[in-house]
Amino acid sequence: MQEMKITPLSQELRDALQDKINQKTKPPGSLGRLEQIALQAGLIQETLRPVVNKPAIIVFAGDHGIAAEGLVNPFPQAVTAQMVYNFLQGGAAINVFCRQHQLQLTVVDAGVNHEFPAHPLLKDRKIACGTQNYLHAPAMSLDQCRLAMEAGAAEVKALHDNGCNTIGFGEMGIGNTSSAALLMSYFTRIPVAECTGTGTGSNMQQLMQKKAVLQQVMAHHVMPHSPEQALATFGGFEIAMTCGAILQAAALKMLVVIDGFIVTSALLAAEAMQPHVKDYCVFAHCSEEKGHKAMLQHLGVQPLLQLDMRLGEGTGAAMAIPVIQSAVLFLEHMASFNSAQVSNRTI
Amino acid sequence: MQEMKITPLSQELRDALQDKINQKTKPPGSLGRLEQIALQAGLIQETLRPVVNKPAIIVFAGDHGIAAEGLVNPFPQAVTAQMVYNFLQGGAAINVFCRQHQLQLTVVDAGVNHEFPAHPLLKDRKIACGTQNYLHAPAMSLDQCRLAMEAGAAEVKALHDNGCNTIGFGEMGIGNTSSAALLMSYFTRIPVAECTGTGTGSNMQQLMQKKAVLQQVMAHHVMPHSPEQALATFGGFEIAMTCGAILQAAALKMLVVIDGFIVTSALLAAEAMQPHVKDYCVFAHCSEEKGHKAMLQHLGVQPLLQLDMRLGEGTGAAMAIPVIQSAVLFLEHMASFNSAQVSNRTI
Repeated sequence: MQEMKITPLSQELRDALQDKINQKTKPPGSLGRLEQIALQAGLIQETLRPVVNKPAIIVFAGDHGIAAEGLVNPFPQAVTAQMVYNFLQGGAAINVFCRQHQLQLTVVDAGVNHEFPAHPLLKDRKIACGTQNYLHAPAMSLDQCRLAMEAGAAEVKALHDNGCNTIGFGEMGIGNTSSAALLMSYFTRIPVAECTGTGTGSNMQQLMQKKAVLQQVMAHHVMPHSPEQALATFGGFEIAMTCGAILQAAALKMLVVIDGFIVTSALLAAEAMQPHVKDYCVFAHCSEEKGHKAMLQHLGVQPLLQLDMRLGEGTGAAMAIPVIQSAVLFLEHMASFNSAQVSNRTI
Repeated sequence: MQEMKITPLSQELRDALQDKINQKTKPPGSLGRLEQIALQAGLIQETLRPVVNKPAIIVFAGDHGIAAEGLVNPFPQAVTAQMVYNFLQGGAAINVFCRQHQLQLTVVDAGVNHEFPAHPLLKDRKIACGTQNYLHAPAMSLDQCRLAMEAGAAEVKALHDNGCNTIGFGEMGIGNTSSAALLMSYFTRIPVAECTGTGTGSNMQQLMQKKAVLQQVMAHHVMPHSPEQALATFGGFEIAMTCGAILQAAALKMLVVIDGFIVTSALLAAEAMQPHVKDYCVFAHCSEEKGHKAMLQHLGVQPLLQLDMRLGEGTGAAMAIPVIQSAVLFLEHMASFNSAQVSNRTI
């Protein structure tokens, strides 16, 4: 993937932004997280008047070799393709929330084990019909991984060219909490069993089996010596595509809305490649999936929402975008103590 | 105030609602708090197809005798009236969020120490030009308290008659975190010093003085022997009006969105009068104001959002209403496993 330079945020406007926030008719700090987001948006966009333009969600879908054997997943692999059809027909949770908040939704076939007929809402970026089973071989080749990252970047670039400056990512892929747990373990050095959760709803016995399988996977592979190689070894096509998409979005100085466990695993890889990427990210929510909280702690970041959700599809990101909009709207439209002739503190 | 009967929620549709939620194309439980809200909305509206109709925010504003002396508040009392003008001109945070989410905003003069000229957005329900200083006398008479509760109820009734079924409450009143702390202490039996926070931003010395003053207030009064008398002794007109409004909204089987520290203090009084009122409430957020978390724990309820906000005006409620809308929208518009031909769990 061609090098994309992600620069640290310029701090030039920080004081002016903070001052603008403090002059709004409210006790200082009283809008809490919204004030932090308004500041971050201003720094990213290098303006005192940040805006959310044409906010969008991209859902990357891919299948996993490991899932074909049903070792880690209570739902059958066919559900990945079935859910893609559900997205295209507008019946999934992410469709509902995108319609509610007028977010443009793009669905990308990153590598689903199914041939879809052409559909205006579906982008065909299929790398292969599912990854290899990483119990036996790397999930994908380095070339495939790079192709996937470039495809993710290209999808972001297309939206950006069309005026979008705020983008959230989601995913669909039966078995992909296993990939995310492996990546989490690799990047955080937390033992993989502690990174492994119930995913779409494993029972106790299934969870024990999932942990055992993932421990076997970690033991099977020589430790990857680069973030890219880790992504290729443990990843899914949808995760590699998300990683490239996140990097491209940050390089384009977009507001990047990180969803739950799987999207954050893609960010772990992205951050290992370019640490400043984090400065462009808003962490939408803390997923109920077991490892997500520790991932966020590893990154040293605070999620915006805690709604006990664990659905994926970018649903957490979609719920967070209106909160980001509230932040830039208060900065733009609230009166100042001066303009509204409201008295400031006496002491 | 004429008796308003608040009935416990009928449980008749609980199983059917839960089944409908479980048939949606998602792992069971994966929409977390949204699933709980969808269920609650269905039970309140006694239908499998709950809706959010004409959602509204009412901001009640009132002044406090105690604040005139500047003993508990870093902002001057005049700010209450100035902020009411700010609401009417559309420049406050609550205006921004109501416009963003298309919430109808009503501003009510419950007892501001200022005579406002007529304005189409302002409802004149003034009981008096501020309460008495409860260091020396009850904040209001029982008659005034009843009048205030009836006025709050009447504002809710008017919105309901116009088709609104979801209502959030906010407040403005320099000094009203003191009233809320006193009410909290009375209803939860937590010592008032522990209920006292920094409000709009007291420094350490101001906070110590505020605690000392409120301890004096608690010592001065014979313990009120009814919730209504407590409301009259410690309340503000805006808090009493909110209490009546909450009761009326629940009696009308509306979804009641509870904001932060001050609105929750009004609910404490309402709940002491009619315990079932809580079943109709969604707790919008956990305010940063010190006592709010303990208030919510006392009520045994979970807030939806934790955005570190402590602004009042109903801003927390306004941020929560789109989340409630997401809940009823997924219930109405998501496909089921059957309708989308998506396979359910294999095991």
